[in-house]
Amino acid sequence: MPFEVTILGCSAAIPTSSRNPSAQLVNLLGRFFLIDCGEGTQVQLRRNNFKIQKINYICISHLHGDHYLGLFGLLSTMSLLNRKKELIIFAPKGLSKILDLHFKLSYSVLSYKLKIVELVSGEKTKIFEDDALELYSFPLKHRIPCWGFKLIEKKQPRKMLKNIINKYDIPFDLINSIKLGQDFTANNGEVIPNEKLTTSSHIPRSYAYCSDTKYFEKLPHYIKNVDILYHESTFHSLLSNRAVSTFHSTSQDAANVALKGNVKTLLLGHFSSRYKDLDLLKHDAEKIFKNVEIAMEGKTWKIKKYFLDEINY
Amino acid sequence: MPFEVTILGCSAAIPTSSRNPSAQLVNLLGRFFLIDCGEGTQVQLRRNNFKIQKINYICISHLHGDHYLGLFGLLSTMSLLNRKKELIIFAPKGLSKILDLHFKLSYSVLSYKLKIVELVSGEKTKIFEDDALELYSFPLKHRIPCWGFKLIEKKQPRKMLKNIINKYDIPFDLINSIKLGQDFTANNGEVIPNEKLTTSSHIPRSYAYCSDTKYFEKLPHYIKNVDILYHESTFHSLLSNRAVSTFHSTSQDAANVALKGNVKTLLLGHFSSRYKDLDLLKHDAEKIFKNVEIAMEGKTWKIKKYFLDEINY
Repeated sequence: MPFEVTILGCSAAIPTSSRNPSAQLVNLLGRFFLIDCGEGTQVQLRRNNFKIQKINYICISHLHGDHYLGLFGLLSTMSLLNRKKELIIFAPKGLSKILDLHFKLSYSVLSYKLKIVELVSGEKTKIFEDDALELYSFPLKHRIPCWGFKLIEKKQPRKMLKNIINKYDIPFDLINSIKLGQDFTANNGEVIPNEKLTTSSHIPRSYAYCSDTKYFEKLPHYIKNVDILYHESTFHSLLSNRAVSTFHSTSQDAANVALKGNVKTLLLGHFSSRYKDLDLLKHDAEKIFKNVEIAMEGKTWKIKKYFLDEINY
Repeated sequence: MPFEVTILGCSAAIPTSSRNPSAQLVNLLGRFFLIDCGEGTQVQLRRNNFKIQKINYICISHLHGDHYLGLFGLLSTMSLLNRKKELIIFAPKGLSKILDLHFKLSYSVLSYKLKIVELVSGEKTKIFEDDALELYSFPLKHRIPCWGFKLIEKKQPRKMLKNIINKYDIPFDLINSIKLGQDFTANNGEVIPNEKLTTSSHIPRSYAYCSDTKYFEKLPHYIKNVDILYHESTFHSLLSNRAVSTFHSTSQDAANVALKGNVKTLLLGHFSSRYKDLDLLKHDAEKIFKNVEIAMEGKTWKIKKYFLDEINY
């Protein structure tokens, strides 16, 4: 089952003719999370042939327009297409108020239940979980209250080795407990240890999203060890003064977070409209961190599965 | 000097991957009016290589999201690019409130003065004029308060005939009064009648915008004789029941308005996402009115100049 991230928008506040405001779609085992929803997101979803009703969760990092203004239109279209399933939005305080005002002014009533969960300030917080995943928010440092998000798979049960069920004639009703680690006692009394019956499942995959923020000491801790870190890279390090004054990051700030956070891949995004050649930003980050990629709209990053014997911790 | 309309968005409420929500740019003698501003308008303006700071007037027909949700982002970008010039928005009551809330939530202060002129219900009303044009609003019949707009050139002064100034040795300080219709007395006492000195300027050009509305008797009167009428054509006449129940028009409703209003060209727009082949709607309208065109994003309609001797009234 996939864990993948499709970039729908990766511009900073001023969009360009080829880069849209922030939005991305995360597919975690068939659960679809929309992370940020800048203006134009619903059209970007259509361009990627994605059925919008599949989205069940939306995370809004903060209430700057380039991160949430696509929400009104997306919610309305879901309603015009007669959505019935509840939609959950994790968002800063204030979103309910402006959504309510828009729906009042446009005399609109949604066809489905909208549940808005307000993000809380403070430390990293688990804001959602189900049987397969956990979703965390954590505070960023921007000009207005702003949060990052981290999605992590839950540890999956061990997998039965090939043909092992026939070999030991294992009853069907014991399989689940063996997958959870139990040994098996065969009919002849022999105890088969679990490691001879099963193999470990993959290491839980994880993804973190950090936009918009300036660099701060605690940030690497929040995103520690994720497979892919999407981090804003509004400016080249040559404009670090501008990054500091606008509470944004340079490519090298993002690389520092990736390095200290021991992530596998750093995916740069949220690019200022002044940059045509994004390789400039990639090379800037690569001076500090090796595995850097550049967000590109319409492109999907699949998170690879690793197993314990492949990794040295 | 041009009078032209560039279509930026011509979809109905649900945008498609190739059609954006309502927006269009009118250039009337170098004054730029943005009429409606659906989600994605600022990107559409960029795609058409238009400098957004040239816009000085914005007309918002009503507060359904597909007609105004691009405004927040456009206004913010104008501010980020350090606009200083005042911007005037003609819009329904309620727009100020939601804009103020957005700016409050995003801790934003605009770099320029925003003047919002509330549209008034009732009859056709002149809401703006300068030395070259007049702008009118008129009520439409939609599910929420909604207005159409009409832009009309003021009558231009007559034009001096070629070489006439040299022929009669006309002093420079008399030229303006001659252009306004005065005769000229030559040095020898001969009175030269104005029609021998000047030629008539073109008939004032005009444009009207009607979206969203159902058909009603008074509508042709509001847009009487315009050169181009942009009229919504959400549905084919086969779906006239749906048009009535949603307070929209069919292509034939639009054609009836064009016919009774004696317009020169009917430009259909605001197409439901169900229609891939828009010629269906064109042919539907052509059963009633001859000169029908289909709005297309990125395309510009130039309004031709006509002179009195070309037209039979």
